[in-house]
Amino acid sequence: MYRIIITSGGTREPIDDVRAITNGSTGTLGSKIADRFLSDFESEISELVYIHGIGAKIPSVKSMKLRKVEIESALDLLETLKLEMNKKTDIVIQAMAVSDYRVDSILKKHEDGFVKIDNQKKISSEIEEMAVVLKKNPKVISEIKKISPGTALVGFKLLSHVAREELFRVALEIGTKNDCDFVFANDLRDIDGNKHIGFLMDREGNHMEYHSKDEIAQGISQECMNLLRRKNEGK
Amino acid sequence: MYRIIITSGGTREPIDDVRAITNGSTGTLGSKIADRFLSDFESEISELVYIHGIGAKIPSVKSMKLRKVEIESALDLLETLKLEMNKKTDIVIQAMAVSDYRVDSILKKHEDGFVKIDNQKKISSEIEEMAVVLKKNPKVISEIKKISPGTALVGFKLLSHVAREELFRVALEIGTKNDCDFVFANDLRDIDGNKHIGFLMDREGNHMEYHSKDEIAQGISQECMNLLRRKNEGK
Repeated sequence: MYRIIITSGGTREPIDDVRAITNGSTGTLGSKIADRFLSDFESEISELVYIHGIGAKIPSVKSMKLRKVEIESALDLLETLKLEMNKKTDIVIQAMAVSDYRVDSILKKHEDGFVKIDNQKKISSEIEEMAVVLKKNPKVISEIKKISPGTALVGFKLLSHVAREELFRVALEIGTKNDCDFVFANDLRDIDGNKHIGFLMDREGNHMEYHSKDEIAQGISQECMNLLRRKNEGK
Repeated sequence: MYRIIITSGGTREPIDDVRAITNGSTGTLGSKIADRFLSDFESEISELVYIHGIGAKIPSVKSMKLRKVEIESALDLLETLKLEMNKKTDIVIQAMAVSDYRVDSILKKHEDGFVKIDNQKKISSEIEEMAVVLKKNPKVISEIKKISPGTALVGFKLLSHVAREELFRVALEIGTKNDCDFVFANDLRDIDGNKHIGFLMDREGNHMEYHSKDEIAQGISQECMNLLRRKNEGK
């Protein structure tokens, strides 16, 4: 019986108590992957933890094995993963689009410089000029094997309008760096409604190519189950 | 027969082609207001234009009178309103949460200063320090009577953790300044799941108090229809 964690949707980095920095991730793909696990492999699953951003799509398959956890920011995600991985976890599918940056401070123009302003409450809309200073978030993907070296890992990489060779190169690099069993690589340019071209790459750089979210979800769930069964037999 | 425009959800101000500044607005209230108009007053409506942000809730009542228009940023909203108001419009219900700011430029730390970087594509996540410079958006609410002086107008004001007197004062001020027939005033603190306390204020500062989104949707649609009928009889 396998315990699976899927992260899905996008993180949200608060600017103040109303505004935030988000990415366009809807959680559609993550929810479809969860659905395939639950519909095709439920009997082999002990628990599927679906960690999702605010407003993300949630799996439509009903199952007692499914537990949903809503999180907001990248730091929330990291904390939640640490907590969840206290229990033996066979695989983490890191499909969530994690913000590379969080808000450090808000500056407003004041005389010939900028001064920090309070962003605990909604920032007044009367300020004429303003800057949101960002600092880097920890790379969640690189923490997972540190938390639990025995857990299999699927990373996701979305690039924007790059050559295929560049996409494959970056995906393989990320996979190697973070000890991923698979990296799913895709380009914004190839995502439009139901059309979604993407590549599931293994440690050797071999890849499968998919052409829709449904194909991707089926492919990833199937490849992950094969991997888990192989690891299990190897024990 | 009345032609009604409802704006709903939140605007999204792009930072690059992945990231954006959003607000937490889901469009739930706007979609419920549209639903009440369509379910209770459809025979009196010639068209209901539902202008909504990306990912916003859309009305659940099916009607030939309903037309949906999706927009992204505050500038898109203004342009769409101008276009839509070329046709005679009896009332605009400005429920959309419009970003006060849009992205002016992105700066990255370089030696002892900051330099502008390109944000047409996804910004590299390798940059250590970054600042998003914001500039003010036009106030959409204040443009509506300029575009069409004869159109009735409902403004919305959300404040965060202020005293009731302050909420009423700000709402009345906004109403007067923008020539609103009604202003719906509410405070983040009073919104939690289905609970939603809010006040519909007329030009004289008289107000109705509501305690849920359903009550608010019913109250606003009814008060607006009463207003439109009074205006119509007065002609």
